[in-house]
Amino acid sequence: MKTAADNNIPYKVYLDEYELPKAWYNVRADMKNKPAPLLNPGTMEPMTAEELSAVFCDELIAQELDNENRYIPIPQEIRDFYKMYRPSPLVRAYCLEEKLQTPAKIYYKFEGNNTSGSHKLNSAIAQAYYAKNQGLKGVTTETGAGQWGTALSMACAYLGLDCQVYMVKVSYEQKPFRREVMRTYGASVIPSPSDTTEIGRKILAENPDTTGSLGCAISEAVEAEVTQEGYRYVLGSVLNQVLLHQSVIGLETKAALEKINVKPDIIIGCAGGGSNLGGLIGPFMGEKLRGEADYRIIAVEPASCPSLTRGQFAYDFCDTGKITPLAKMYTLGSGFIPSANHAGGLRYHGMSPVLSQLYHDGYIEAVSVEQTAVFEAAELFARCEGLLPAPESSHAIRAAIDEALKCKETGEEKTIVFGLTGTGYFDLVAYQQFNDGVMNDYIPTDEELAKYAETLPPQPEE
Amino acid sequence: MKTAADNNIPYKVYLDEYELPKAWYNVRADMKNKPAPLLNPGTMEPMTAEELSAVFCDELIAQELDNENRYIPIPQEIRDFYKMYRPSPLVRAYCLEEKLQTPAKIYYKFEGNNTSGSHKLNSAIAQAYYAKNQGLKGVTTETGAGQWGTALSMACAYLGLDCQVYMVKVSYEQKPFRREVMRTYGASVIPSPSDTTEIGRKILAENPDTTGSLGCAISEAVEAEVTQEGYRYVLGSVLNQVLLHQSVIGLETKAALEKINVKPDIIIGCAGGGSNLGGLIGPFMGEKLRGEADYRIIAVEPASCPSLTRGQFAYDFCDTGKITPLAKMYTLGSGFIPSANHAGGLRYHGMSPVLSQLYHDGYIEAVSVEQTAVFEAAELFARCEGLLPAPESSHAIRAAIDEALKCKETGEEKTIVFGLTGTGYFDLVAYQQFNDGVMNDYIPTDEELAKYAETLPPQPEE
Repeated sequence: MKTAADNNIPYKVYLDEYELPKAWYNVRADMKNKPAPLLNPGTMEPMTAEELSAVFCDELIAQELDNENRYIPIPQEIRDFYKMYRPSPLVRAYCLEEKLQTPAKIYYKFEGNNTSGSHKLNSAIAQAYYAKNQGLKGVTTETGAGQWGTALSMACAYLGLDCQVYMVKVSYEQKPFRREVMRTYGASVIPSPSDTTEIGRKILAENPDTTGSLGCAISEAVEAEVTQEGYRYVLGSVLNQVLLHQSVIGLETKAALEKINVKPDIIIGCAGGGSNLGGLIGPFMGEKLRGEADYRIIAVEPASCPSLTRGQFAYDFCDTGKITPLAKMYTLGSGFIPSANHAGGLRYHGMSPVLSQLYHDGYIEAVSVEQTAVFEAAELFARCEGLLPAPESSHAIRAAIDEALKCKETGEEKTIVFGLTGTGYFDLVAYQQFNDGVMNDYIPTDEELAKYAETLPPQPEE
Repeated sequence: MKTAADNNIPYKVYLDEYELPKAWYNVRADMKNKPAPLLNPGTMEPMTAEELSAVFCDELIAQELDNENRYIPIPQEIRDFYKMYRPSPLVRAYCLEEKLQTPAKIYYKFEGNNTSGSHKLNSAIAQAYYAKNQGLKGVTTETGAGQWGTALSMACAYLGLDCQVYMVKVSYEQKPFRREVMRTYGASVIPSPSDTTEIGRKILAENPDTTGSLGCAISEAVEAEVTQEGYRYVLGSVLNQVLLHQSVIGLETKAALEKINVKPDIIIGCAGGGSNLGGLIGPFMGEKLRGEADYRIIAVEPASCPSLTRGQFAYDFCDTGKITPLAKMYTLGSGFIPSANHAGGLRYHGMSPVLSQLYHDGYIEAVSVEQTAVFEAAELFARCEGLLPAPESSHAIRAAIDEALKCKETGEEKTIVFGLTGTGYFDLVAYQQFNDGVMNDYIPTDEELAKYAETLPPQPEE
């Protein structure tokens, strides 16, 4: 089924180190409708750089607010760190194509070849670098599944910065190995909610048996930062700055594809807070926004946490404790927590304001997939491509397989590129559920979603 | 401290796919003193190909017995599989050098970028391929830490071969995630000793509370193979054929070093059964044996399982149940099991006959290291190089750091290459012991070793 020309394309395309991007790409520069600014929930006015400086590093605030500069240089120190695990490979999924007997050509950009096991390290090192550069002592953050916490621990260990991670209590207990990786990298890991913060104590008083949530851990991490001298808070997704840093994925993907003279038809990424998807599609979206090229771009989210496909496009808090600024995004309500039997990650109630705006303007499609189907795709992929994917990444695999099977029906030789954000070595509890056939595909009802939507804060006047 | 020239050497050297070795290198062809043949313990005569065919695939037997052919072609199907994760990178450890402030130049060949997490996959796919080619239904094997079992599961899933893994019971229970990875790849995983074999039932009857051992799991896997039609037994280390397959590591390392015009002074590998070390040093040893070059070659073993440094060079069984042929090797006695608090892997009682002969003839040095020192090296490495190493691999890191620190004292700019065989994602229980400061460095006494040495079988007449 494959042509001889195909076989001239290697299994893996590695860029050389000198081809590592020298600047991040800022998709906001090419957006006609800019993402809405963060609002101060007290005044309902856009957050100023000064207001944000209580929480974030100065340089990161500049990046957060910059809707104009298309390229922002990557400091040499960050590029040196990137060289330890980048450029990452663009892989031609020959074995998966063969297994599916599809005329489609499938590529994936693999971000899992580092100990954090995911793309999160791309932004972690950037955020840690700017904190260090500002003379700070340390950073605080939250982590759910643990990928972001691990990535930040690694970056801080490298730079000699203190790292305090509030880890959702259920993950802290169920994923002791993730906790130990962070400890090996010298981080303090605190189960959240904890008695180390006021908000944590309040949540515990109200609900002593709570197993925590990402939104609650964010509240604690922000409070911990504000109450410690020389600390700032950092976040692994959702923010504009994070999508900026993650654009290194898309830039490398585009350069690698150009090297082998391939132009994709469809680009697919999983979407939780949006960091991977935003990074992967960035430069392709730039071409699309400028009218230079067209691509189908598909965001894949879990049916159990369907912010794009079933959420509201509205201002909402980024955390459960409602202490953060308001972001305009597709959201299920800041109190939303996916059903406990959801094992597939991507549990955040909202979506990056950049991606939300692009989706709202019709530049992105979104699909939601159920978790058993996701793990079926993961198993198929693992067995023929030899990599055990993270459950998050497997959402993209599912959609890529579905598109490839459509090509099999129609005979179209489309080129599909998807983001394989990470590895599933720390997600074996979820795989075990799947292996044992006890996975549950619970999807929230319209009534449940309506209940959470009621928790949205008052919206600014148009 | 580094010269400008150094900085022209990238962090990672990747060979292109067309540079993937087309033949394995058989170091036995260049050995004047060949490794001693396997003996039939009944007759004390060398095992014939016919005798071995009850246990091993025909093609693998030919490789096992071949002391003459310097190169053995790698079948195209195996090379295609290799392309999914090879060539593996040769990494310049710039950050580690900086941290140590050493004039030494340190490189490592990283074999962990695949889901089995180690070099084991290099031989697993070869052994599974030959089994498939012979028309067999499946293979049986044993696994301790789980790297080999995972690798074989992956290879069998790829080829559609049944895979039965006897997993040392203590690992089966303490490493449920390893078990689940193998299940995800479709393997049957049986805790050993089990009631599925006669030898397992016998061991359980004698000692119902036993947590198992590698030697005992080997006995069960061999019995399971012999009693099932269409199955053969495969082994992940020790054997000549395994070292042959693993030579792909050394061939790539040598090619990558030549590409950047670097000649190593010291080559270091961890040594359990010897598969990684034998593979890494193969082609370098060839030059040394032929008098074309000289290298210091260092085998690093745990002080708690010191077969090279404190064992006997004698014929011994490869398993606890004493049902295998006899191999002439450095051995602690087939009944030896390292102390329960040894968390660092490399637990096998013997050493590859090829490496044993080379060590006996003075071509290899051996050092033993204590596990706390090993995990200190692992932590240092993880924090500056960004990769969480397997405990096994960390033995080599320890020795490489020690050599680099000697260079710091003497000012010598030596080039050190070591094998980073795999990642430690499934070894976090051991890291937790280290993080909690409860690691124990128990080393067997001379009396204990003497007791085990008494279990050696009668030796053949000279």
